[in-house]
Amino acid sequence: MLLRFTKMHGLGNDFMVIDLVTQHAQLSAKQIRQWSDRHTGIGFDQLLVVEPPNDPDTDFRYRIYNADGSEVEQCGNGARCFARFVQDKRLTAKKVIHVETSGGPITLRVRRDGQVTVDMGAPRFAPAEVPFIAEQEADQYAFEVAGEQLMVSAVSMGNPHCVTLVDDINNGTLERLGAHIEAHPRFPRKVNAGFMQVIDHGHARLRVFERGVGETQACGTGACAAAVAGIRLGLLRSPVQIQLPGGNLQIEWAGPGQPVLMTGPATRVYEGQIRV
Amino acid sequence: MLLRFTKMHGLGNDFMVIDLVTQHAQLSAKQIRQWSDRHTGIGFDQLLVVEPPNDPDTDFRYRIYNADGSEVEQCGNGARCFARFVQDKRLTAKKVIHVETSGGPITLRVRRDGQVTVDMGAPRFAPAEVPFIAEQEADQYAFEVAGEQLMVSAVSMGNPHCVTLVDDINNGTLERLGAHIEAHPRFPRKVNAGFMQVIDHGHARLRVFERGVGETQACGTGACAAAVAGIRLGLLRSPVQIQLPGGNLQIEWAGPGQPVLMTGPATRVYEGQIRV
Repeated sequence: MLLRFTKMHGLGNDFMVIDLVTQHAQLSAKQIRQWSDRHTGIGFDQLLVVEPPNDPDTDFRYRIYNADGSEVEQCGNGARCFARFVQDKRLTAKKVIHVETSGGPITLRVRRDGQVTVDMGAPRFAPAEVPFIAEQEADQYAFEVAGEQLMVSAVSMGNPHCVTLVDDINNGTLERLGAHIEAHPRFPRKVNAGFMQVIDHGHARLRVFERGVGETQACGTGACAAAVAGIRLGLLRSPVQIQLPGGNLQIEWAGPGQPVLMTGPATRVYEGQIRV
Repeated sequence: MLLRFTKMHGLGNDFMVIDLVTQHAQLSAKQIRQWSDRHTGIGFDQLLVVEPPNDPDTDFRYRIYNADGSEVEQCGNGARCFARFVQDKRLTAKKVIHVETSGGPITLRVRRDGQVTVDMGAPRFAPAEVPFIAEQEADQYAFEVAGEQLMVSAVSMGNPHCVTLVDDINNGTLERLGAHIEAHPRFPRKVNAGFMQVIDHGHARLRVFERGVGETQACGTGACAAAVAGIRLGLLRSPVQIQLPGGNLQIEWAGPGQPVLMTGPATRVYEGQIRV
């Protein structure tokens, strides 16, 4: 049988997207690993699968698999591609799409310019929720790593983030401290280490050393965490444009308890058919 | 316009293949670089293009482009995929295909089991033709590199090869000496450094440190050079199975002045369509 798929990317984070609403296929971890190989397969960071919803109040069920075949809960860049895909394939005519994921329901909004806004949920700052070891919650914490003294913010966007302000994102701090922060004992589940250079109230540059991965071109949850940390410190005002190596994301946040809205591009690369 | 393409690989060396016999497109170096990106494009080691022949005695013209958009002369793994492609797409019904390339005419033969035999031309051993600095031609040369004394063979398969016999291809010799041999002053145009472990007269294991690239999974010309060097030394007898990290190639060589025939697999991965 020939299975149709679409290759997409969001700021260089790339996806194989499969419609399992109008097609049927059994996906094994072995099959996903084969497809993910960039030389002998299709090649992707994550596989996105569109399925019919279980809950009739939602439009789709959305599953995300890593290249190793394991299922993951959240991927901001993938969510934007998912929304563009169900629109382009005319699986829905709605501009606001309600989706079930294994991490809970999410809402996606396709703008007229084709960019997609994803509701990333409310950030959490309580140290136990990040998790981060600290006596009490603060906007910034004194933090010692590899013999250096930093001030850092600790934010959960569903996953843990440590945000460090730098004068210049290319001054070598990520290279020197990224891996040390990621594995620091005060972050018991490790952490995504972001390095942010504030340009003005509406703009910041960001590089992220992702947990278990190393530096990436565009970490969506990292952009949310950095914008929120900067807003809490009074250095940024919503909406904030976060400039990542792979491109720009716009982050909106109305304050504590409110969800973070992330807006950015979703690009279709090609249509494919593979025998299964 | 939508351009149809096929993604293929030969022992992990992967290709985008385009039929420009039944389709029309202008290919710029910029376009090829965009397509070659493994995250924002299709991703490939080389782009293979099938065109109508200029010479009516040949069946096709076959062009090969690197991921940077530059045109190259020879790629053994690509030639096998090219032959399978023109058969699968019914661009020819011939089992023996005559092809024009910028490196000269080549002949490809599709076997009944789907493997493809490529005539790789005759090997050359004269030091000036490799090029290799030596007073006179020999089967093996005393060779000093990074303070170690080796015996090496020097062979041209259109490109220069240095073949070193080892007791065990995984004993660390490639890691220790590969880059030093590649850049050794006795090979004025640098060299592909092969490390071969002879198992018996018909079988050898090979790892190759490719010129300008580093270790690769399956160097076709390296397999030819190693088999020929082993046959000249009386250690191997044609046909020889060369076991590379990416898989096996069968090499036949009838002796000096005769062409080397390389047989191996060509695998179709998926069919694609991309907007141009």
